[in-house]
Amino acid sequence: MASNTFYAVVAGVGAGTGRSVALRFAKAYPVALLARRPESYNEIVEEIKKAGGQAIGVSADTSDEASVKAAFESIKKEFAGRNLAAAVFNVGAGFAVKPFLELKAEDLENSLNGNAKGLFNFAQQTLPQLLESVPDSPHPPTLIVTGATASIRGSARFATFAASKFAARGLTQSLSREFHPKGVHVAHAIIDAVIDIPRTKEWVVNDGKEDSKISPDSIAESYWYLHTQERSGFTQELDLRPYVEKF
Amino acid sequence: MASNTFYAVVAGVGAGTGRSVALRFAKAYPVALLARRPESYNEIVEEIKKAGGQAIGVSADTSDEASVKAAFESIKKEFAGRNLAAAVFNVGAGFAVKPFLELKAEDLENSLNGNAKGLFNFAQQTLPQLLESVPDSPHPPTLIVTGATASIRGSARFATFAASKFAARGLTQSLSREFHPKGVHVAHAIIDAVIDIPRTKEWVVNDGKEDSKISPDSIAESYWYLHTQERSGFTQELDLRPYVEKF
Amino acid sequence: MASNTFYAVVAGVGAGTGRSVALRFAKAYPVALLARRPESYNEIVEEIKKAGGQAIGVSADTSDEASVKAAFESIKKEFAGRNLAAAVFNVGAGFAVKPFLELKAEDLENSLNGNAKGLFNFAQQTLPQLLESVPDSPHPPTLIVTGATASIRGSARFATFAASKFAARGLTQSLSREFHPKGVHVAHAIIDAVIDIPRTKEWVVNDGKEDSKISPDSIAESYWYLHTQERSGFTQELDLRPYVEKF
Amino acid sequence: MASNTFYAVVAGVGAGTGRSVALRFAKAYPVALLARRPESYNEIVEEIKKAGGQAIGVSADTSDEASVKAAFESIKKEFAGRNLAAAVFNVGAGFAVKPFLELKAEDLENSLNGNAKGLFNFAQQTLPQLLESVPDSPHPPTLIVTGATASIRGSARFATFAASKFAARGLTQSLSREFHPKGVHVAHAIIDAVIDIPRTKEWVVNDGKEDSKISPDSIAESYWYLHTQERSGFTQELDLRPYVEKF
Repeated sequence: MASNTFYAVVAGVGAGTGRSVALRFAKAYPVALLARRPESYNEIVEEIKKAGGQAIGVSADTSDEASVKAAFESIKKEFAGRNLAAAVFNVGAGFAVKPFLELKAEDLENSLNGNAKGLFNFAQQTLPQLLESVPDSPHPPTLIVTGATASIRGSARFATFAASKFAARGLTQSLSREFHPKGVHVAHAIIDAVIDIPRTKEWVVNDGKEDSKISPDSIAESYWYLHTQERSGFTQELDLRPYVEKF
Repeated sequence: MASNTFYAVVAGVGAGTGRSVALRFAKAYPVALLARRPESYNEIVEEIKKAGGQAIGVSADTSDEASVKAAFESIKKEFAGRNLAAAVFNVGAGFAVKPFLELKAEDLENSLNGNAKGLFNFAQQTLPQLLESVPDSPHPPTLIVTGATASIRGSARFATFAASKFAARGLTQSLSREFHPKGVHVAHAIIDAVIDIPRTKEWVVNDGKEDSKISPDSIAESYWYLHTQERSGFTQELDLRPYVEKF
Repeated sequence: MASNTFYAVVAGVGAGTGRSVALRFAKAYPVALLARRPESYNEIVEEIKKAGGQAIGVSADTSDEASVKAAFESIKKEFAGRNLAAAVFNVGAGFAVKPFLELKAEDLENSLNGNAKGLFNFAQQTLPQLLESVPDSPHPPTLIVTGATASIRGSARFATFAASKFAARGLTQSLSREFHPKGVHVAHAIIDAVIDIPRTKEWVVNDGKEDSKISPDSIAESYWYLHTQERSGFTQELDLRPYVEKF
Repeated sequence: MASNTFYAVVAGVGAGTGRSVALRFAKAYPVALLARRPESYNEIVEEIKKAGGQAIGVSADTSDEASVKAAFESIKKEFAGRNLAAAVFNVGAGFAVKPFLELKAEDLENSLNGNAKGLFNFAQQTLPQLLESVPDSPHPPTLIVTGATASIRGSARFATFAASKFAARGLTQSLSREFHPKGVHVAHAIIDAVIDIPRTKEWVVNDGKEDSKISPDSIAESYWYLHTQERSGFTQELDLRPYVEKF
C-alpha cells in the first residue's frame, strides 16, 4: 500500500514548530492541521499546496473533547479512505511565569487543559486510527508529543507550566508502554530551547550567539526521523537543544 | 517560641498514611485533619486526643478552591494564635487502572483534580502561613507531598494516574526551587509500594513475604525526619519501598 | 570543502553495531575501524570497499592510552589531509553477570577499562581533531557513545557493568556540556535491547516475537541522524529499544 | 541481642562528613574508622572516647583490595565477637576540575580508584558481614554511600569526577537491588553542596548566605535516619542540599 493512502495530523500549528512539522510531513502525506483559529493554519495550508502537497485546516480546541471529535469527523470526510500514519501533538498552552502565590486557579486550569487534557483528547482520537494502520503504514504509525524543559524540571516561577508538562510526559510514557507492543510508536521530544520564530526574533538568549535558538525545521527533521524508525528500534524520548544552551 | 504555638495540617487522612502522619506530628503539634467526610477523620481525632494530643477535623474538598479556603478559615479560628509549622498533602485520587482507550475524560479530570489541583489549592493556602513561620518555627516550616511509583514512571494502563502524579511532582519541584531560598522546606516522597492498611490486607504482593507492604507508620517517621532537617541540608526527594519490592 | 576531505572513525567493530555503523558512515566518509584484533574488522573493511567506499582497519586496545595514540598516528598517515567528522565509541566490554560476592576485582577492572578508560582515551584523541573540523565539516563534528540499559539502571547482578556504563554516561554528559558550545556534538545512545546479530540468534527475548531484538542497522541509522543534526538542535541523549521490550 | 554486640565502620574519615558520621554512629555502636593516614582519624578516635564511646582507627587504602582485607582482619580482632550493623563509604577522591583536554589518564585512574574501586572493595568486605547481621541487628544492616552533584550530573570540566561518581551510583543501585531482598539496606545520598568544614571556611558559596554550606552533622543525622528505617520502607536515594543552593 503506497503512502498516498495515509495522512498525518498536526495539532497546534502556528508560526513555529507546528508549521515546520506540517511542511515536513506534507512531503510524504496529506496533512490535517488543527488549531483554534483559521488564522493559525490558513497560510500554512496554502504553503503546502503551493509546494505540491495536500493539506486541510480544521478549527478545533484540543482541550474540548467534543471539539476534537468533531474535528476528526471532518478530517475523515475530507481524507476519506485514508488511514492515519502520524500524529503530532504540539499544543503549547498555559505558559505563565509568575511567583507561585501570584498564580490563580485559572492559570493551572489553562495549563492543564492545554497540555494534559488536550493530549488526552488527541490521543483518544488518534490511537485507534494509528492501531488500524499498523499492518500497512509505510513506517510504524507514530504519535509524537512536544515537550519542553519544564517536562523534566520544575523551575521556580514555572509551577503551573511544569505541572502540565510533567503531566503530558507521564501520560506519553504510559502510552509508549501500552502501545509500543501493539506496533504504534509513541515518542516524547524535550525541546530545551527558545524556538527561532518571528515572535522570538528580538529575544536575546545564550548571549545572542548565532543559532542559539532552535530552528523549527530542525525539530521537524527530528520528528520525521522518529516517525521513520523501524519497530526494532523505537526511541521513546530524546532532547533537542542549541549547542550553546546551558543544561 | 515554643512549638505549642504552632500547628500542623494533614490533607487526605483516612486509614493509611494520613492517619499515621497525623498521629506522628500530633506528638509535637496540634494537628488539623482535612478530609472530604468526617468519617475519615473522626476516629483519628479521638485517637490523638486520647493520646494527650490536640486535633481537629475539617471537611474539605481540596480540589475545590473555595472549600480549601473555608477550611483554613475554620482552622485559623480553632487554632487562633498558632502558626503553621508543617503541612502534608497526602490526597490520593483518581487511581483508574485501565487500557487507555477505555478511560474517559472524567477519569483524567478526577485524577488531575485530586492530585494536581488539590495540591495547588493546598499549597496556595499553606505556603503564605509557612513563610510567616520561618523566623520562629522549631524546625524549618515544611510542605511534604506524597508521591507514588506513578510520579516517576508512566506504566501501561496508568495513563491518567501517571499524568496527575507527574503533575504533582513537577509542581512540587517548582515550589522547592522557589521556596527553599525563603526558608520553607518543600519535599516530595515517592512511595513505591502498596501501603499496609486494612483495605490492602488481603492483597498478595511480593509473594506475600513479611513486611512486603510499607507500614504507614514508617512513612510517617520519614515525613517527621524530613520536617526536622535543618536548612543547611534539605532533602527535596526521597523514595520509600519495601525491601522486597522490585524496582 | 567537500566531505571527501573528512573521515570517520568507529571504535569497537565486530559483528553487530560497529559493523553497521561503519557501513553507514562509509556511505559518506572514508572510515577507520578500530578493534583489538584484525579478525574483527578485516571482513568489514572488505565489505565497505566492495560497496565502493574507503576503509582501513587498525588494531588497537582503546583501554591502553599508548595503543590509541599509535592507532591515530597510523590513521593520520593513511588518511593524510583528511579531518575527522565523526567518531563513534562502541566498545562493549566487561559484561559479567554475577552475584556481587562472586565478582572479582578483575571484573571491575575489565569493565572500567573497556567502558570508561577506553572512552576517555578515545575522546582524548578524537576531540582535538573534531574541534579542528568545526569550521568546515559538512555536519557538526560528532562524537557518539553507545550506552546500554545498564547506563541508567543498576540491576541486581550487574554491579560492575552498571558501574562502568554509568561512568561512560557521566563522562559523555560532561563532554557534551563542555564541547557543545565549541561546536562539537557529543551524544549518548541508550541501547535498551539485545542486538540482533549472529551471536544472539538463538536467544529468545520478548517471547521470541518478530523484531524483538534491535537491528544494528537501525542503530546505525540513528547514529547517522545524530551526526546530521544541525547545531541549533543537538540531541544529547536518546534511547532505542524494540517495540516489544519491557521498560 | 543488644546493640553493644554490633559495630559500625566508616571509610573516608577526616575533617568533614566522615568525622560527623563516626561521632553520630558512635552514640549507638563502637566504630571503626578507616583512612589512609592516622592523622585523619586519631583525633576523632579520641573525641569519641572522651564522649564515652568506643572507636578504633585503621589505616587503609580502600582502592587497594589487599589493604581493605587487612584492615577488616585487624578490625575483627579488635572488635572480636561483634557483628557489623552499619557501613558508610565516604571516600572522596579524584576531584580534578579541568578542561577535558588537560586531564591525564592518571586523573581518571585516581578518580575511579577512589570512588569506584574503593567502593567495590569496601562492599566486598562489608556485605558478607552485613548479611550475617540480618537476623539480629537492632536496625536492618546498612551500607550507605556518599554521592555528590557529579553523581547525577556530568558538568563541563568535571569529566573524570563525574565518571567515577556515576560509577559509584550505578554500583550502589545494583547492590540495592541485589541486597534489599536479603534484608540489607543499601542507600545512596547525593550531597549537592559544599560541606561546611574548616577547609571550606573561606569559600564564598550562595552569596555567602548563612547556612549556605551543608553542615556535616546534618549529613550524619540523615545517615542515621537511613540506618534506622525499617525494612518495609527503605530509601534507596535521597538528596541533601542547603536551602539556598541552586539546582
